[in-house]
Parts: sequence; C-alpha cells; structure tokens
Amino acid sequence: MVVWRPTPWGGRDAKRKNLPRVVRARKLLRVNIELLNTGSELMLGRVLNTHQQWLCRRLSDLGYVVTRQVAVPDTARDIQSAVLEALSRADLIIATGGLGPTSDDLTRDLIAQLLGRKLRLDEAVLDHIRRRFAARSLPMPKNNEVQALVPEGALVLANPNGTAPGLAIRVDEDGGWKVEDGKKSHPPSSILNSPSSRSSKWLVMLPGPPRELRPMFDHFVAPLLRREFPLEAPFVCRTLRTSGVAESLVQEKIATPLDALAANGLDIGYCARPGQVDVRLSARGGNAAKIVGEAEAIVQKILGAQIYGYDDEELETVIVRLLAGQKKTLVVAESCTGGCLAHQVTSVPGASAVFPGGLVTYSNEAKQKFLGVRTETLAAHGAVSEAVAREMAEGARSQLGADFALAITGIAGPDGGTKEKPVGTVFIGLAGDFGTVVERKFNPFERGTFKEITAWQALEMLRKQMICP
Amino acid sequence: MVVWRPTPWGGRDAKRKNLPRVVRARKLLRVNIELLNTGSELMLGRVLNTHQQWLCRRLSDLGYVVTRQVAVPDTARDIQSAVLEALSRADLIIATGGLGPTSDDLTRDLIAQLLGRKLRLDEAVLDHIRRRFAARSLPMPKNNEVQALVPEGALVLANPNGTAPGLAIRVDEDGGWKVEDGKKSHPPSSILNSPSSRSSKWLVMLPGPPRELRPMFDHFVAPLLRREFPLEAPFVCRTLRTSGVAESLVQEKIATPLDALAANGLDIGYCARPGQVDVRLSARGGNAAKIVGEAEAIVQKILGAQIYGYDDEELETVIVRLLAGQKKTLVVAESCTGGCLAHQVTSVPGASAVFPGGLVTYSNEAKQKFLGVRTETLAAHGAVSEAVAREMAEGARSQLGADFALAITGIAGPDGGTKEKPVGTVFIGLAGDFGTVVERKFNPFERGTFKEITAWQALEMLRKQMICP
Repeated sequence: MVVWRPTPWGGRDAKRKNLPRVVRARKLLRVNIELLNTGSELMLGRVLNTHQQWLCRRLSDLGYVVTRQVAVPDTARDIQSAVLEALSRADLIIATGGLGPTSDDLTRDLIAQLLGRKLRLDEAVLDHIRRRFAARSLPMPKNNEVQALVPEGALVLANPNGTAPGLAIRVDEDGGWKVEDGKKSHPPSSILNSPSSRSSKWLVMLPGPPRELRPMFDHFVAPLLRREFPLEAPFVCRTLRTSGVAESLVQEKIATPLDALAANGLDIGYCARPGQVDVRLSARGGNAAKIVGEAEAIVQKILGAQIYGYDDEELETVIVRLLAGQKKTLVVAESCTGGCLAHQVTSVPGASAVFPGGLVTYSNEAKQKFLGVRTETLAAHGAVSEAVAREMAEGARSQLGADFALAITGIAGPDGGTKEKPVGTVFIGLAGDFGTVVERKFNPFERGTFKEITAWQALEMLRKQMICP
Repeated sequence: MVVWRPTPWGGRDAKRKNLPRVVRARKLLRVNIELLNTGSELMLGRVLNTHQQWLCRRLSDLGYVVTRQVAVPDTARDIQSAVLEALSRADLIIATGGLGPTSDDLTRDLIAQLLGRKLRLDEAVLDHIRRRFAARSLPMPKNNEVQALVPEGALVLANPNGTAPGLAIRVDEDGGWKVEDGKKSHPPSSILNSPSSRSSKWLVMLPGPPRELRPMFDHFVAPLLRREFPLEAPFVCRTLRTSGVAESLVQEKIATPLDALAANGLDIGYCARPGQVDVRLSARGGNAAKIVGEAEAIVQKILGAQIYGYDDEELETVIVRLLAGQKKTLVVAESCTGGCLAHQVTSVPGASAVFPGGLVTYSNEAKQKFLGVRTETLAAHGAVSEAVAREMAEGARSQLGADFALAITGIAGPDGGTKEKPVGTVFIGLAGDFGTVVERKFNPFERGTFKEITAWQALEMLRKQMICP
C-alpha cells in the first residue's frame, strides 16, 4: 500500500500570493490536472498514446488524480482551443508533443502566441543541441534551431536525452492574454469565473518521445507539483487483482460487506479483462489508510487465492517472486505463442535467476529435436493435442533441468483450424515434481490477444500449482 | 495506398431534414467526430487506452478523422460535462466504457439523464444476458440486470461477445435537453451556435472490453457513419516508414522537393521513434490520390532503401514477407531480449512458414547445450561479447537448419553492467550463406524499451542484408 503524506499546511506557499486561506484550502482539496496530448498521428490512430497511462500513473503515485485528458491533432485551431479550455478548468496542464524540429511541431509557437509571450533564442539550449549532433559527428540541420526558441518567462527543462527542452510557464491571473491578432486582451470570462482562477496556473510542455518525457517529468514536473500544489489530505489507493471470477460476481460478493466503509468514504472501482477483474479501493483524508486497509482485509478474506497480485503487479512478476521465494526454476516450450510467454517472464527484472531459458518450437522438427516429442505422438494426435503438450512440457523440463516446465501448443489463426480443433484451440501443459497436467482452452481471439491470453493462462496454471500444491 | 470514394451527393440524406444544401455541404467537408473514454482506471494510469488508437485508426481507414479525444473519470460531473461539451462541437460522439454491471458503470444512466430520456428494461437484451450465463451454467447475478436498461429511442447494438449492448442515440436539435434537476430546458446556447447544430448528431455508447467494442464498431457504427455522414471528398493518406535518418534531416531532405505539392493541398506529418521516422502524406479532394502518389514517388526517390515499410506495416511483417518471397527461413537465439524477437516475428500471420523456431538461452548452460557456444569462448570473452554473439548465431543456424539466424546477447539491466560493458550494451549477430556479422549497440533504456529496440535493430540488420546482399 502506498500512502502519501500531505505537505505541512501554511508556510511559503500559503503566503506566496497573499491569498485568503479559504481559497488556497479549496484548491488543495482537488488539484485539477489535465493532460493535453497533441499529434495528428494520434488522431489518425498511427501510434498508441502511452503518455496518458504513464503520466496518470506517475501522478496518482504522487497522490494527484488527473481530471481530464485530451488529445487533438497538430492544427492551430485545435491546439489553441484545447489549451484555452484546459486553462479555464485546470491548475496544472501538461502538454505533450509538438516540440520537435519539423513543420508539424507547432505547440511551442501556438502556446506562446496564445499567452502573448514572445519567443527568444536561448543560447544555452542551442549550444546543447549543437553538441548533441557534434557527439554523433553530424552537422546540425538548420531546422533544429527552432527547438532553442523559448517563450518569454518560461522555465527551461533540460533534456539530456534529446534536443527539445521542456518548458514550464506560470500563467498568472494578471499575466494577460493575447488573442490571435496580437492585441492584448483580458482573459476569457470563463477563466475568471472558474474556481481556481484566483491564483497561478502552470502550463508545462514536454517533448513527445517517452525516453525524453519520462525523466523530465521525474526531475522537474514532480518537484514543481509538490511545491506549487501541495497535498492537503493523503490519498490512499490499493488495487487487488483477481482471476477466475466474473466482474458482476466480484461485486455481488464484496459490495455489501464493504457498505459501511463506503459510507465512510471508501471508493470502489472495478476493471475487467478476459478472465481477470481488478478491484480498486481508494480513499482520501486522515482516515484513508485505515479505511482502505480494512476494506482490503475484507476483500482478502472473501476472495482469497483468487487474488493473484496487488497494485501494478503483473502475473509474471508474481510468478518470478514465487519462484525466487521457493528457489525453483521455470522453463517454457512454446509453439503457437511463439515466444510471448518467455518474453513476459523475462520482462521482470531478476528473471534470469529463475528462468534458464525457453524454446520456441514452431516446426515439428524443432519439437522433436529440442524437446524429444515422439514421431508417433505427432502422427497419432497431431501437433495440437494433449499428448504433444504433455511431451513438450516433460521434454523441456528434462532438457533444461528445471523444476517446472510450461508448454503451449495450439492454433493462433487466422488459418489452420479444423472442425474438431477450431482456431483458438490450445493445450497448456505443466510439468513438475508432482507430475504433469494438461488443460485444454479455447481462445477465439485475434492473434495478438490469443497469444497474450494464452500465456497468461499458462502462468495462472503455474501460480495455482505453486500456492496450492 | 487506400483511397476512399465519396458517397454520391444528394439523395435521401440531403433531403432528410430539408436543410439548405450549403449547410449539409459544409458539414460533409469536415465531419466532427469525438471520442470520449470514461474510466477512473484510465485516469489513475492503471490501464492503457487502446480504444483511442483502434477507433481512430478504423475511422481514418473509412476516410474520417477524429477531431478530439477526451478521457474522464467515472464521476457524474466529469462525464456529463464532457458529453455536453462534445455535443456542442461534434457531429458524432463515440463514448466507451461505463456499460458494465458494477456500481462504477455510470455512462448509460448519466447520458440518459442528460438527454432527458427514460430508461426502460429491454426484454430481448435481458434474455440475451440470461442465456450467456446459462451457457456457462452460471446463475445471472442480479447486478447484470442494469445492462438491459435502454434509454428511450436508443438503438440497441447487439453484443455477441459480452453482456452489455451498445447504444446509439440520435440527438436532434429539437430533441430538447434536460438539466440535472429534471426540468426540461433548451439546449445550451453554445450548442445552438456551433456550425453543425442545425442537423442531427449521434451519440454512440460502446462497451469497454476490446473484443466486444471492436466487432460492434465494425458491424454497427461504420455503416451508421457512412449512412448519416457520407463523405463528400475522398481522403488519401500514405505513411512511409524510414529507419536510420534523424527527423530533422528527413524534413531537410524532402520538404523543399514537396513544396509545390504542399501548395496544392498535400499535408506532411512526421513521427519519430528511436532510430525511425514515419513520414505521413495526406490530401483530401478530387486530386488527393494524384497529389499523394506524386509525393510518394518524390520521397521514394530521395530516401530509397531507408524506407522499410508502408502505412501500418511493421518491420516484422516486412521481414516475413521478404523471407517468404525469397523462400528463406529465419531462426533466432536470444539472451537479453528473452523471447521478444521471436514474439515479434510470430505475431505476423503466416510466420510459421518461414520461422521454424527460436531459442531463449538465458543461462550459459543453455547457450552451450542448444547452440554449441564453447566454454572457452564464454570464459575468454564473457557471455555478452562479439564472440559469443557470433557462436550463438552460427549455432542456431546449424542446429535449426535455417538460411538466416539472428542472435542477441546483452545487458538489459537494471543490474549486471560493468564499466566496459554498461547496462544497455548489446551484441547482435547475423549468420547466413554470406558469412556472419556482429554489430555492437548501446541501448541504455528501461528493460521493456531495451528489449523492443534491440529486437527491432536485429530485424533491421536482416532487412538490409536481404535487400542489399
């Protein structure tokens, strides 16, 4: 469980602008944070918006909840109207993208224009960009110069991983606004009327590439947030991840026992994926930790071993932890999942201590050569069969000398199905000291989902075996 | 290249509401489509919003561009204000999530309330839900009944993959609006003033799980869109995916030669990822195909083999196509990427014809046993070395009898680095008829990114070898 402690009340922040205490108190109760992701490639569906999850997650880890996320294409009208609307609601706006060197990178210019700030060339930034190119023995293209333009009064957030710096601008009520034709104007009335308009807002622009954005958030934005928008009340959130119970049944089992806590401020959320349901318990305020702790104990008692993990813990992380704790090793033999299971296990830092290796045996020859699957078994039952899954698991275990072996053989599709074994049919074998078991599953999903769900089912078979041998 | 033809002008749609032609024509020029993703789990960063990419992609394939995407938590205030704002701007709103059976699934109720529509129990939907539980020999939890509630006048979109149906509501100008206290009121003035307010808008609600949402979009929403918002002008979009040239350099090379076409309506977009830049060429109107075709030819001539793929084509898809075309096979031997490379290759339908298998050899024993890496080589150079990468590639190629073998050994981190070989160091070996080459790379990224970028670099080594042997 993560508990965020509030910043002590008062001090420099409360005095900073001689604001009435009541205004600052109200603001601290709910800091409105909005994300604005710019990029036509997002709106055309060419790329996945990973910034939303990453930034929302980081912010909730700090005790702040994002109240809205907006994505718009790289056009002046869309970007400026989205910024203007966000300024009318939010205390902090984090904009991503549009700081690159190409003609569709407009965010910096458009925001400077909207706020009536001139752009000036920052020699230090220009020097940094030049040195990055020089380090790779390349001349700096002329286009990159625009990345050294900084709106007046903006803080420059250094970018050790790229050319574009981040920018942070404090937008004061009396800071004025510029309309597009360049005439100074008052802020739109909607901004004056919004609850948080009586003190400063911050607008932060971060570059689009994740490996530039992420360290910049941690180094600059998180400290800025803690300083400018200190938390008044702790926020506590705990997610229990369950498997094998339908979403409505999870609620049917736990809702009534949690009623009393819900009346005291417990917030309950559910999120379903195939075969899994996450239960999210959260509360804010002085009693938050106690409320969430009691709720967790109740759910724990009701759902027991159907809870496989906590918070962000993925099943593969749980498996690596269980294996390490029991000093056991795991190997895998995959046909239709084609390395997906090995990839999941090895995504966990420290996996190498419990995972000597895996085999991706797509062809029958590979199944025979590396796993010792018998020609007769393949001939009698076919490659997608209980018998072959069993021999694959036992072969992998003995070949690689591990405590457990998981083996998967099935039909990922889109082709290759038959009437008896349609696309989506899969056999998962688990071999260990206890013997070998094989389960038949039916996962009629598109190829990527098929691979992921099947790998997940294999890990869940192992988890159940390990916790209830 | 994909070309979308416009629906023939006039006919039923133009007459439907006796609107002046100019109003409908203006509307058809830009159909405003907005996505609204609801879910506190999104705002807390617990899950990735894959709906945005999928829906945006599908819509752009149909010739429509999403003008805004918004995500909000599951709270009445946030959902209703987001819906109201979207109604003031958009012609079609697609809302996702919040149709489940649990207490935080509020979208259906809140939208019905906002539009002043009563909810009625739909017996056919209830029957469908009951039968889904019966098919799994489970009693239907009482909670699921709410999923059979349908706002007055809404179309029910059948859900063969889950319990919650989708809902589509036509919102007419004269349809009236209800404020939260239940009193009938006129639509907010901002709605009356918006350019598209003179005809019907549609609000579509889709369930959150991707395998329910996706077929529902294809079966119901796409036909609805074509009928209600026919395209006036074709939209053509082509993406060229390049490797090995910096983003600013790509623009420096191609922008001036494309100037004349840009003046004629060509839109150019750039999207950079590590080592890669996508160039997006698009245009709308009668000459769109010609303009985009000419632009593509110009970029093709300038960037040549640095273009590895087109549109959504991933590098692994290109590799499988190249291998199939040349009747060659590929095997892989992975240490630090732990199955990521095999997983990528096998994500391509038809990979089994060119990919007999792969080996994930995390431990030195596995490298020796399955790949024949020599003890002396490991002792003299260490597992992360050019010599071991070479022996892994050659061993995999001969063991599995393939035309090409890719081998990867490196330090994914977070631990295990040394001064000479810091975390991120990796050796990629490629063996084939032509001999064996090894490249040393430095990918100092977090574990997941490290694996993906390294696998990508390995495939790119193979592509270059295959197209320029």
